[in-house]
Amino acid sequence: MTILDRRLFGPGPSNPYPEATAALGLPLLGHLDPAFVAMMDETCDMLRTVWGTTNARTLPISATGSAGMEAAFVNTVSDGDVVVVAVNGLFGQRMAEVARRCGGEVVEVEHAWGTPVDVDRVVSAHPHPKVIAAVHAETSTGVRSDIAALGAAKGDALLLVDAVTSIAGIDLQADAWGIDVGYAGTQKCLGVAPGLAPFTIGERAWERRVEKPRSWYLDLGLLGGYVGEAGTKGGARTYHHTAPVAMVASLHAGLTRILEEGLPAVHARHQQAGHLLQAGLVEMGLELFADAGCRLPELTTVKVPDGVDSAAVRRELLERFGIEIGAGAGPYAATVWRIGLMGHNARPDAALLVLAALRDVLGR
Amino acid sequence: MTILDRRLFGPGPSNPYPEATAALGLPLLGHLDPAFVAMMDETCDMLRTVWGTTNARTLPISATGSAGMEAAFVNTVSDGDVVVVAVNGLFGQRMAEVARRCGGEVVEVEHAWGTPVDVDRVVSAHPHPKVIAAVHAETSTGVRSDIAALGAAKGDALLLVDAVTSIAGIDLQADAWGIDVGYAGTQKCLGVAPGLAPFTIGERAWERRVEKPRSWYLDLGLLGGYVGEAGTKGGARTYHHTAPVAMVASLHAGLTRILEEGLPAVHARHQQAGHLLQAGLVEMGLELFADAGCRLPELTTVKVPDGVDSAAVRRELLERFGIEIGAGAGPYAATVWRIGLMGHNARPDAALLVLAALRDVLGR
Repeated sequence: MTILDRRLFGPGPSNPYPEATAALGLPLLGHLDPAFVAMMDETCDMLRTVWGTTNARTLPISATGSAGMEAAFVNTVSDGDVVVVAVNGLFGQRMAEVARRCGGEVVEVEHAWGTPVDVDRVVSAHPHPKVIAAVHAETSTGVRSDIAALGAAKGDALLLVDAVTSIAGIDLQADAWGIDVGYAGTQKCLGVAPGLAPFTIGERAWERRVEKPRSWYLDLGLLGGYVGEAGTKGGARTYHHTAPVAMVASLHAGLTRILEEGLPAVHARHQQAGHLLQAGLVEMGLELFADAGCRLPELTTVKVPDGVDSAAVRRELLERFGIEIGAGAGPYAATVWRIGLMGHNARPDAALLVLAALRDVLGR
Repeated sequence: MTILDRRLFGPGPSNPYPEATAALGLPLLGHLDPAFVAMMDETCDMLRTVWGTTNARTLPISATGSAGMEAAFVNTVSDGDVVVVAVNGLFGQRMAEVARRCGGEVVEVEHAWGTPVDVDRVVSAHPHPKVIAAVHAETSTGVRSDIAALGAAKGDALLLVDAVTSIAGIDLQADAWGIDVGYAGTQKCLGVAPGLAPFTIGERAWERRVEKPRSWYLDLGLLGGYVGEAGTKGGARTYHHTAPVAMVASLHAGLTRILEEGLPAVHARHQQAGHLLQAGLVEMGLELFADAGCRLPELTTVKVPDGVDSAAVRRELLERFGIEIGAGAGPYAATVWRIGLMGHNARPDAALLVLAALRDVLGR
């Protein structure tokens, strides 16, 4: 068997931190082992740090980021609840779909792809929504939106935020920005394999939550016992489901690595790598897709030059260099590339490599 | 850091097959990489073999076994549908709860814990249920029920089966037995870490499925594109969510190992290890909990002797020998132990070890 060693420079997964990969290979612990309970406690604590929150109810949900989205809505939205969704890309669209399935009366506020969320339009879309939902870092377009401004203007609504591509890559302050419910993924800037959804919910949202959500698996009322409520560290756990032990161990290792480096340094590393990449792409004569001023450093969108076959370029990068970059999303599938330098890949050498390979394949 | 090396002889997770652990440490593939698409195809094929099915729609759902249960009900049960649930342990109870959350009119057919499902009582509980649900191997009691007999008597109902603790441990024939929908977990006899739910659904159930389930994440209509429909191997995939790539690679490795050994040999190994364990427990003067004739070889339930502190024994096993065994479930938490010899642990040396350790701690 040949083991493939890819450079994952697409929109995710990224190559995990070596510490996160190594942890996957350690002997497995039982999900009720005192050592695993302690590891889960520490994982939740470290997640609080990267979320910028003191929320007691902060945990890794046992499924991928999209299940985190579903957990966010199924626990806050029931039949007839008004949900305003800021849509500026694929994941905003998905939020609207998931909210509708929960029975929500969804008001979609459409934006052009590549632009950030317009806070005024969103908060004036309905007089008294139960929930306002937005994506912090749109994975489909490479755009950052101003969640702090949205939080300041949310009024009585609960603010529900997708931080899948922002967590541990750019500044994220759940408490200071007024995020009531947030979900993320492990496979982007956290530098861990996909499979868990870091999640946080604050007191305001907790008090207004759906008492008995349609989903048993994602019912936060039951999950509280699974990870232990605040103040019961090391205390009794209520069995809910079998924790994905290996993935939690890997997340623990990735978070430890990140916090040892220090969040500001990690953010700076993402900033520098993304800047290097974006400057290099422009220098190569390519045009960036996302509006200037809202570009994510960790995920760059760039237009496919006229006359170039997007898929052929991606295939050649993969086959000749073992480098994966992403196609565009939705309507931009054939006309945009997405290049992620996230987590362990947020390094100058990775930026140089993808630039050199693109230059080679494009003949520029 | 001291790395703990536990012997996981509880009700799950079990120690994974070495091949499954090794696969977790391999370089990560992108979830759209052609090599990963091929690996997913092979994984689904191998899952068909261990399920005993030719169902096109057989896949690893991206969450733990309990999410498999939720996927089974949310795709087949909507408001007002009658669901008969055979309850002979904790997981039957859970099925009833999940079915109710999906809006089902649930008829629970209660059985004493430790006994198998009474097929006559179950099929006569309602004249025309949409779904009849039962657990093949009750993890809470160590009991095997006769699913073939239930399938033969199901009439027009869809038969929905929990195979979490039976898959790859004892005989399981989804097609021959008339199972319409089945879900399982990876962390028991499949010998892979927890985190995925092997799932299968046949044509009858597919035609009667819920068109737009409340859950987006577990919507089988959308997941078809995620893994590729039958006959489209290697063909285009529709992006749904990011596959938990490392876990799928691990499941692929575990399944490969199992099928190289051969399912009959794997079943015989579970049978022999369980028999050795159960005979040794009886010889030690302990009393088995599950009714004779329906005892699972892979998961043994045994009564805690009078005057013995169940938790203290488990703690001593863990601390002195690094051996985990399980407490009882539900009403039997303090009075029953659950000892699993599953997957890689279904070996005579594991049986001897747990017997010797128990003898030592109990002073017998």
